[in-house]
Amino acid sequence: MTDRYSEFRDLARRLQVDAVALVPGPNLARLVGFEFHTSERPLVLVIPAEGAPAAIVPELELGSWEPLGVPGKVFDWRDQTGYGPAFDALARDLPLQSVAVEGQVMRVFVHDALRATYGTLDIRDHEAAISGLRLCKTRQEIAALEQAIEISETALRETLATVRVGDTETQVESRLLGALFAAGAEGLAFPPIVAAGDNSARPHAHARPDYAIRPGDALLLDFGARAGGMCADITRTVFVGEPSAEAREVYETVLAANRAGHAVTKPGVTAHQIDDAVASVLEASPYADRIRTKTGHGLGRDVHEAPWIMRGNHAALDTGTVFTNEPGLYKLGAFGVRIEDDILVTDDGSRSLTTFPTELTVI
Amino acid sequence: MTDRYSEFRDLARRLQVDAVALVPGPNLARLVGFEFHTSERPLVLVIPAEGAPAAIVPELELGSWEPLGVPGKVFDWRDQTGYGPAFDALARDLPLQSVAVEGQVMRVFVHDALRATYGTLDIRDHEAAISGLRLCKTRQEIAALEQAIEISETALRETLATVRVGDTETQVESRLLGALFAAGAEGLAFPPIVAAGDNSARPHAHARPDYAIRPGDALLLDFGARAGGMCADITRTVFVGEPSAEAREVYETVLAANRAGHAVTKPGVTAHQIDDAVASVLEASPYADRIRTKTGHGLGRDVHEAPWIMRGNHAALDTGTVFTNEPGLYKLGAFGVRIEDDILVTDDGSRSLTTFPTELTVI
Repeated sequence: MTDRYSEFRDLARRLQVDAVALVPGPNLARLVGFEFHTSERPLVLVIPAEGAPAAIVPELELGSWEPLGVPGKVFDWRDQTGYGPAFDALARDLPLQSVAVEGQVMRVFVHDALRATYGTLDIRDHEAAISGLRLCKTRQEIAALEQAIEISETALRETLATVRVGDTETQVESRLLGALFAAGAEGLAFPPIVAAGDNSARPHAHARPDYAIRPGDALLLDFGARAGGMCADITRTVFVGEPSAEAREVYETVLAANRAGHAVTKPGVTAHQIDDAVASVLEASPYADRIRTKTGHGLGRDVHEAPWIMRGNHAALDTGTVFTNEPGLYKLGAFGVRIEDDILVTDDGSRSLTTFPTELTVI
Repeated sequence: MTDRYSEFRDLARRLQVDAVALVPGPNLARLVGFEFHTSERPLVLVIPAEGAPAAIVPELELGSWEPLGVPGKVFDWRDQTGYGPAFDALARDLPLQSVAVEGQVMRVFVHDALRATYGTLDIRDHEAAISGLRLCKTRQEIAALEQAIEISETALRETLATVRVGDTETQVESRLLGALFAAGAEGLAFPPIVAAGDNSARPHAHARPDYAIRPGDALLLDFGARAGGMCADITRTVFVGEPSAEAREVYETVLAANRAGHAVTKPGVTAHQIDDAVASVLEASPYADRIRTKTGHGLGRDVHEAPWIMRGNHAALDTGTVFTNEPGLYKLGAFGVRIEDDILVTDDGSRSLTTFPTELTVI
C-alpha cells in the first residue's frame, strides 16, 4: 500500500499543492480498499506532499476505518458534537495553503468546511489528475470487470428470452434486475435504462409502467452489474418483431460506427481519434442529425470516468485503459439505437470485454 | 406545478438571496417530477426570487427535460463544446449576486463553474432550508413509501426463511437483493447491509464472502427498496440459533429504546426529545458504552434527509414528517443489534409504516 500513498504525494508535488484531499468515492475506495457510503457525514483523507496523511472520520465508521491500516492521525467526530471541531483539529495539526480535490465527487458542504477552518485555503478542482491515477487498470481490476460483464450478459440473455409484444418497459426492467442479482451482481453500476419505441430515442430514458411494447419496436437496454468494486456498462438494442427498413439502416449504421471505433483502438491512439472514427461513420450517413452524444467514457470503479472519448480530447490511451464505445442515433419521438461495448486497450491493440452479439436481432 | 416554483421564490426571498439553484437529486426530482442521474455533465435549474427560472441542461437530456414543462429559458450544451458557454449565457441572461445551493448535493465542479462565470457570486449552502421544503410528505409520497416498505418487508420475510448456519453474508445478501427486485423494487434506497457475528457491530458493514454464519450469531439486515421515487429503510437483527444471555439483554434494551422513541412521537415533539427518549433508555442500561449513533434521520426521496433525530436539534416535527427510529448497541469485535422502523407523524400521534415484527427472533 505504501506505493499508493506515494502516488498521491507525487501528485501533490506535481500539481504544486500542499496536499490531495479524498472523499468517499472511487479514488478513496481504490486507495484504502473499502467503499465508504456517500452520506451527510463528512469523511476526508488528506495526503500531504510531505509527511503523514490525516483523516476526518465519523465515529460510527471507525470500525470500518481502523482495520484498513491507513497511516496517520484520525480526527473522529460524533453526531452529537458535529464535525466542526474535527476539521479545526485537522487544521491545527496539518497546516495547508492549497489542496487538490475531486471536483466531481466532493460536495459543497465539505468544500465549505475546509474553507471555514483553513480560512484562506486554495481549494483546486483537480478531478482529472486525481482520477487519472485510475486510468490504467490492474490485472485484478480487469478480472473483476470481466466478472461484472459476464453477470450482465447472462442477465441480458435471460431477460431477452422472456420479452414479448405487450410487455411494459417496467416489466422488462424488473426481470432484468432480478436476473442481474440472481447471476451474482453485488450492485448496479447505475439505474438501468429499459426503453422501447419512442422512449429509446431518449439517451437517459426511464422505464414506463404504462407503455406496452408494440410490434416492430426498438427495445434498448443499457445497464451494468457491479462486482469486485468494478462497473460493467453494456447497451444492446433489439427489435421486437420486424423493424422498418429505416430502422434496419439506422441499426447497421450504428453498428458500423461501433466497429470503426474498436478497429482504431490500440496503445497510443487518442480519445479524439476514436471519437472521430466513430462520428465520421455516423456523419457520413443520412442520419447525421440524430447524433446526440460523444462516443463514450472510461469505465472502472466509476461507471463514468476518464478518459472521455470525444473530439478535442487529445490524451493518448495506454495499455490497461478501459472505455465504452457507444455510438447511437436518436430520432426524437420515434426510436433510437445504441450499441455499447466495453473496450480494453491491450499491448497489441484492443479487446472488447463485452462479447454479447451485436448483429441485428429480431425477437 | 406553479405553487411549487413559488415555494422556491418565497424561499429565496426568505433567505435573502437572489435565487435558489438546484442540481439533480431529491429536490429537483420532487419539483420537476423526473429523476435525472448525477453525472459528469452539469444540469442546474436556477429559480430567481423574481422572474422566470433558467436552466442549464446537457443536450442529451433535452428529450427528458422538454416534456416536463419547466418554465423559463434553457441553455443547453453539447459534450463537443463543453458547458462553459452555457454557464456564461446563463450569467448574461440572469444576473445574480447571491444564490442558495444544496451543499449536500451540489458538487465542487458545479460550484466552481458558477463562481467562474459570475465572478463574485456569493454561493451559500442552504441545504437545510431547501431540503426542508420536503419535510412534510404528500399523501402520494406516503403511499409510495408504504409500497417501498411493503416490498422490503416481503423480501425480508422470504430471505429470512432461507437463512441457515453456514451461509455466508454475501449469500444472504444476494438472496435479499433477488427477493427485493422480484417483489417489485424499482431500485435500492442504498447498498444493503447484511452482517453477521462481529460484523454486525459495524454500523455500515459490508457483507463478507468468507464468513460463514455460526450458531448463535446475530444477523443484521439494514436495507430498503425504492418505489415511486421514495426510499424505504428498515433494519432487523435476528439470531441464527440460540443467542447468549448478554445478547438477549442487549436486544431487549434496544427494543425498549425503539418503543420509547415511537411512544413520544406526535406533532410538535422535537427531534431532540425523540433522541433523548431513545438514548435515555440505552444510557440507563449496562451497555451505555456501546452507543454509536443518533436515533435516526428523515426519510423520503433521499434515504438520509432532514430531520436529523438527535439531541440538540430542537426543530419540532409536523404531521406528515417521516423519520427512522433506529437505536442500536454495538460491541466492537463481538456483535451489534439495531432495530429500525420508519415512523410517520400523524395528526393524533404517530404510526410505524414498517410493520415487520420486532420481537426477538431465533431462526
